[in-house]
Amino acid sequence: MQPDTLGVIGLDAVGGSIAWQAARAGVPRILGYTSTPKDGVAAARAGAITELMQDLRRLVRNSDFVVVSAPPRATMTLMGRAASLLRGGGRYMTDVSSVKLPLVNWAQEQNLSSVFAGSHPLVDVREGGFRSARPDLFAGQIVYVTAAPDGERAGREVADFWERVLQAEPVTLDAQTHDSVVAWTRHLPHAAAAALAVTLGSHGPKGVTYGSETRSATALAGGPPDALVDVLLLNRDAIVEALQTMDRSLHDLGSALADNDEARVRTWLDAASSWRSRLGS
Amino acid sequence: MQPDTLGVIGLDAVGGSIAWQAARAGVPRILGYTSTPKDGVAAARAGAITELMQDLRRLVRNSDFVVVSAPPRATMTLMGRAASLLRGGGRYMTDVSSVKLPLVNWAQEQNLSSVFAGSHPLVDVREGGFRSARPDLFAGQIVYVTAAPDGERAGREVADFWERVLQAEPVTLDAQTHDSVVAWTRHLPHAAAAALAVTLGSHGPKGVTYGSETRSATALAGGPPDALVDVLLLNRDAIVEALQTMDRSLHDLGSALADNDEARVRTWLDAASSWRSRLGS
Repeated sequence: MQPDTLGVIGLDAVGGSIAWQAARAGVPRILGYTSTPKDGVAAARAGAITELMQDLRRLVRNSDFVVVSAPPRATMTLMGRAASLLRGGGRYMTDVSSVKLPLVNWAQEQNLSSVFAGSHPLVDVREGGFRSARPDLFAGQIVYVTAAPDGERAGREVADFWERVLQAEPVTLDAQTHDSVVAWTRHLPHAAAAALAVTLGSHGPKGVTYGSETRSATALAGGPPDALVDVLLLNRDAIVEALQTMDRSLHDLGSALADNDEARVRTWLDAASSWRSRLGS
Repeated sequence: MQPDTLGVIGLDAVGGSIAWQAARAGVPRILGYTSTPKDGVAAARAGAITELMQDLRRLVRNSDFVVVSAPPRATMTLMGRAASLLRGGGRYMTDVSSVKLPLVNWAQEQNLSSVFAGSHPLVDVREGGFRSARPDLFAGQIVYVTAAPDGERAGREVADFWERVLQAEPVTLDAQTHDSVVAWTRHLPHAAAAALAVTLGSHGPKGVTYGSETRSATALAGGPPDALVDVLLLNRDAIVEALQTMDRSLHDLGSALADNDEARVRTWLDAASSWRSRLGS
C-alpha cells in the first residue's frame, strides 16, 4: 500500500531512510518517533518526517502504516505497546529486524496476523543514526517479507509498500525458512568476523600493524553490539549449528597443517577460493 | 643500496611494481625474468624493465641487487638456482614472501647470510600479474626486513633499497618474531576468511543472495591458493596455535548461545566491537 499517513518508530539509518524516501515518493504525512532526540531533529530538518511525535500511541493511532526500526527485542516491546491501537481497519505494521520467526509467532499469539508482516531489508548499514540515512538506501535492494500463515493479506500490503514506496524488491517467504537462511548468509559472517576480532584482541601481538585485509575481514565486528546480541540469541539454534560447522572447517585446516599434509591444505583452500570466486566482487 | 643493475625474478603485481618504481627512481638497468610471457611483455612495454631475460643465471650474474617475487617454495627453488652466482662482491638478494624463517634458515645453511636478507612488504595485492602492478605500491608502506643473525650488513642494504628506491618504510626484525607476528596479523585473517567461505560453500543454503557484508568478510579467500598453501605450511606451528585460539572463541560464542546466556554473548560481542573500533577504518 501507499499510505496517506506513515508512522516511523526509530529514526536511525534504516528508519530514517524509509521516512525520507517515503517523503520523496509523495506520502503526504510522515510521523516520526525516536528515543534519540538528535535523530528526530535531523530527520525533521531533512524533510524526512512531517511531524516529530512525543507520544508513541498517538503516532500509531494516526498512521495507516507503521514501521518499527529497532533491534528485535525492542521491536517486540514497541509493537506490544502499539498493537492494541492497530487492530483492523486496513492498517498495517512491519519491522526491519533480521530475525523473523519470533516476531511472526508473537504477532500470531497477539492475534495480529492480519495486521503485521515482518520485513528484513538486505542492506548493509555500518553505523546507526539518522546521519547514515539516505533516501535511496533500498532502491533495487532485496527485502524479505514474512507473514504468518494466516496473514497473507498483510504480507501482500507490506511487500507492496516496499516495492511501491521504497523501490525495493520484496521477496516473500515463510519466517522459519528466512531465519535458517540468514543464520548462514548474514549472522554467521557477523559471528565469524567477531570471532576473528575477539581472537586477535585477546591473543594477537600488541603494537603491530594490521593491513586493510584484516580491516575488511573484521569490518562486520565494528558496530555497536546491541542489535546483534538480540539477533544471535533469537536465532540461536540455527546459528549454533552454523558455528559448529565453521568450527569443524577451522579444525580441518588445523589438522591438515599439523599433519603437514599439503594435498589436504590445498583441497581446503581450493574449496574456499572457488566458492568465493563464484560469489563475484 | 641503489643498484646500478637490478634483477627482478617474477614480474607479477609485486615484482612488477618493484621494477617499475626502480625505473622511475633512476635505476639505469633493470633485468626481468618471468615464467609468464605476457607479464614480461607488459613490463617491457610499461618501461618497468630495460631487458627481458630468458636465462635466470645470466640475470643473476649481471645484477648487483636481485629481488625474487614468487610464492615461498618457488622462491627457495629460484634462490637455490641463483645462489652460487651471487656470493660476495657487494651484491645482495631479497624476496617478498610473507614467511621468513625458512628462507633465512636456508640462506644460513647455504652460507648466504652475507648476501641474502628476507623482505615482507605489507601491501594488499588481490590478484597477480603485471596488470595489477603500479609504481607507487610501496610508497609509505611498511616492509619487514629479516636478516640472519650473522647477516646484518645484508639486512641494512636490503632495508636501504626499500627506503631509497621504493620509498617504503623498512622495519628490521628477526625472522622468528616476524613469522609469529604475521601468523596472527596476516595468516589467521586469511585462514578465517577461507574457513567462512568453506563453511558457506559446503553447508550454506543454495541460490540465495549474499550481501556486501559477506563479500567483504570472505574477500581474502578469493585469490589463487598457491602462495597461501606454501605460507600456511611453512608457518604451520604458529598458525595452528592461532587457529586453535579462534576455534575456542567460536566455541565460546556457541556455548553462550546454546545456554541462552545474554550476559556472556554481550561480553563476547563487546570485546569484538571494542577491538575493531580501536583498529580504525
